[in-house]
Amino acid sequence: MSIRETGMQKENGMREDDLEVYKRQGFDNPSGFGKRPALVIVDFVNGFADPGKFGGGNIAPAIAATVKLLAFFRERRLPVAHTRVVYADDGSDWGVFTLKAPALKTLTESAHASQIVAELTPMAGEYVVRKRQASAFFGTELNAWLTMQRVDTVVVAGCTTSGCVRATVVDAMQNNFRTVVATECVGDRAIGPHEANLFDMRQKYADLHDNAAVMRAIDALK
Amino acid sequence: MSIRETGMQKENGMREDDLEVYKRQGFDNPSGFGKRPALVIVDFVNGFADPGKFGGGNIAPAIAATVKLLAFFRERRLPVAHTRVVYADDGSDWGVFTLKAPALKTLTESAHASQIVAELTPMAGEYVVRKRQASAFFGTELNAWLTMQRVDTVVVAGCTTSGCVRATVVDAMQNNFRTVVATECVGDRAIGPHEANLFDMRQKYADLHDNAAVMRAIDALK
Amino acid sequence: MSIRETGMQKENGMREDDLEVYKRQGFDNPSGFGKRPALVIVDFVNGFADPGKFGGGNIAPAIAATVKLLAFFRERRLPVAHTRVVYADDGSDWGVFTLKAPALKTLTESAHASQIVAELTPMAGEYVVRKRQASAFFGTELNAWLTMQRVDTVVVAGCTTSGCVRATVVDAMQNNFRTVVATECVGDRAIGPHEANLFDMRQKYADLHDNAAVMRAIDALK
Amino acid sequence: MSIRETGMQKENGMREDDLEVYKRQGFDNPSGFGKRPALVIVDFVNGFADPGKFGGGNIAPAIAATVKLLAFFRERRLPVAHTRVVYADDGSDWGVFTLKAPALKTLTESAHASQIVAELTPMAGEYVVRKRQASAFFGTELNAWLTMQRVDTVVVAGCTTSGCVRATVVDAMQNNFRTVVATECVGDRAIGPHEANLFDMRQKYADLHDNAAVMRAIDALK
Repeated sequence: MSIRETGMQKENGMREDDLEVYKRQGFDNPSGFGKRPALVIVDFVNGFADPGKFGGGNIAPAIAATVKLLAFFRERRLPVAHTRVVYADDGSDWGVFTLKAPALKTLTESAHASQIVAELTPMAGEYVVRKRQASAFFGTELNAWLTMQRVDTVVVAGCTTSGCVRATVVDAMQNNFRTVVATECVGDRAIGPHEANLFDMRQKYADLHDNAAVMRAIDALK
Repeated sequence: MSIRETGMQKENGMREDDLEVYKRQGFDNPSGFGKRPALVIVDFVNGFADPGKFGGGNIAPAIAATVKLLAFFRERRLPVAHTRVVYADDGSDWGVFTLKAPALKTLTESAHASQIVAELTPMAGEYVVRKRQASAFFGTELNAWLTMQRVDTVVVAGCTTSGCVRATVVDAMQNNFRTVVATECVGDRAIGPHEANLFDMRQKYADLHDNAAVMRAIDALK
Repeated sequence: MSIRETGMQKENGMREDDLEVYKRQGFDNPSGFGKRPALVIVDFVNGFADPGKFGGGNIAPAIAATVKLLAFFRERRLPVAHTRVVYADDGSDWGVFTLKAPALKTLTESAHASQIVAELTPMAGEYVVRKRQASAFFGTELNAWLTMQRVDTVVVAGCTTSGCVRATVVDAMQNNFRTVVATECVGDRAIGPHEANLFDMRQKYADLHDNAAVMRAIDALK
Repeated sequence: MSIRETGMQKENGMREDDLEVYKRQGFDNPSGFGKRPALVIVDFVNGFADPGKFGGGNIAPAIAATVKLLAFFRERRLPVAHTRVVYADDGSDWGVFTLKAPALKTLTESAHASQIVAELTPMAGEYVVRKRQASAFFGTELNAWLTMQRVDTVVVAGCTTSGCVRATVVDAMQNNFRTVVATECVGDRAIGPHEANLFDMRQKYADLHDNAAVMRAIDALK
């Protein structure tokens, strides 16, 4: 799947000669799959499914596609982690992120908006990460948990593509996990940033695959 | 400075209604300046100044603007850090990033391409961070060094906007530093990603200011 | 206060000539106080106050002394953080620590044993860190929170001296906070390891002060 | 090997009833070996081999035993990492650790004291970690490198037992690596702290094995 085929250059303002620069400088190589993948589902909580709060754009179809990918990981008993944004009720943990986006403060432990959407409800044994920042790795034990599960490959679903997904993907790559963006399973409130961040991640940090390709690659590991 | 005034919506494919979503959901608030800023200059090394290697686009003018901002920080004896990408000569530290972008392997300790550009040569006492990943915070002591300097505000210059600058800005914000992107001092090999990432950072992670505004804000702290 | 005066050499088996080695090699220098201290109270929860679970030794008097130090910090409106060990009810986050010490698994969100002891109940606005590991910094946002509060000095109380206190002190120092062990406010289930770890921390990582000295030093900052 | 058999209770002041507390509270369980071990050799550099600088005690025999263990890892082509303490020539990276122990400042990139001892000279492909703090994980990419090598078990050699070895062991455990202290291969400038820290690590963080047991366990993995 070339950039050209995705029509990305129209959506996000990339021009032909921009793409040539990346190609000439040697980006956009695959990092591939390792031996043992985990699925990390970022912030698919009610508040991000709701266009009246943090949602909109293509988040709803991304949740629907994630239901299928999650079922695939569960059938194969592969590790699954979910993230939620959770701030303290008393505001003791507010920081710079809540200065930039104050509505995040409403995402408290018991708030409806911070609960994982019903169709992706975690099963017992799946790891639920409470986080306050963009990256699922920041200030959490996600990395240590992945080590405990002997994972070497992280498949990322969730939202938003231009926010917590991007930050999580960069950290997964930095921690030396082969990182895969499940393209049908990531969504954003606005399509321009969604496309622009898919481009960046593909060039430098992660491989991009649709669900069928992810499933095919994982079944080929056996 | 509104998004509209920067002409950003034309450059990066943002549409009017995309902007409305961000506005309605409460993003794009200022985090402001704290009391003590540091300047972090990301990867302005020969290899990223060279369009034949990792450079191009608007990186050259960004370096020129950074010369001025660096002089300002030096005059006021404010903390300054520089980053370089440095991999081991024997490849012992290669990882997923070098799978995605193999040319990074050429950035070794003594390689010309990994030396900071002459016009920004670090002075004694300025902190030089060797890194292998996108973020200047990852696998480095940058955060601890900022704590030692009692810094609460990080002003970011460097390249590329869509790569190591973005990753550094996200981590600075996550570590609860008020984070400022010096818009004239960041550059990228291609303008589409440059603009798209300025948009993301402004909405969620950092304040965007030109040199005059950064200098004015810092002098107002006294 | 010399090592000799504390009688430490008798308690922990240090010999005179061991002490001479440390002295000759230049350890045991003060790092002092910065400008703004926070109090970090490590794991003073019911389970560590109970000799039938993880407690015993001198933990009870350490809690009593911490009540006084906490009152002092509250009066001066200085930042306070508390830590609890909290594992998931479903065991999804068990790791190597729970292999070494399986009883830790009982410390779940709602377990009596994992609640902070009544006399140190956190007030609104005090930061409560949930952790699963020894260090209060590991997999948490404690460092980012301290940055947000502009803290440069960490005063540590809690238990156990040879476990989570030691790990937290080492990380506080590594993050470049001036680190102070409040000697009356740290306790352990057994006195030998308590004394041995006070020795290590004093030599290399932190200053050791009793409550009166901590209070005097903080009031002198004004 | 019971604590009693090692005579530890005499050396470090542990009393019989202290040991009973740990036993009753359920510590000192094995975490075992995973599937793929790495050897991490901490700070066996000239300055720590020299009793006139940071050395003394049982460090010399620990180096000799490490020569044998390193040969074993090399023969089996298992991953090996070495650490050095390296501060900048211009002091730009000094912090709280150098306040506590100012002699550390002499450990610069080209100083004789900061070079790995001749008998353990790293081979091409072995990972050399430059660090400034106690833990080999702090401000370094050691964790990411271990992930890249698919390691799940960390065997620790080096010095000092009560300093950088202890800090590295705690972090290895926190990152969910099965952690093993190679008891013959760790040394300290003074025997009291050496013994006291072996006790703490064994109870809570790591398994303790002599070289023969480490080798036997690794060969049994095949």
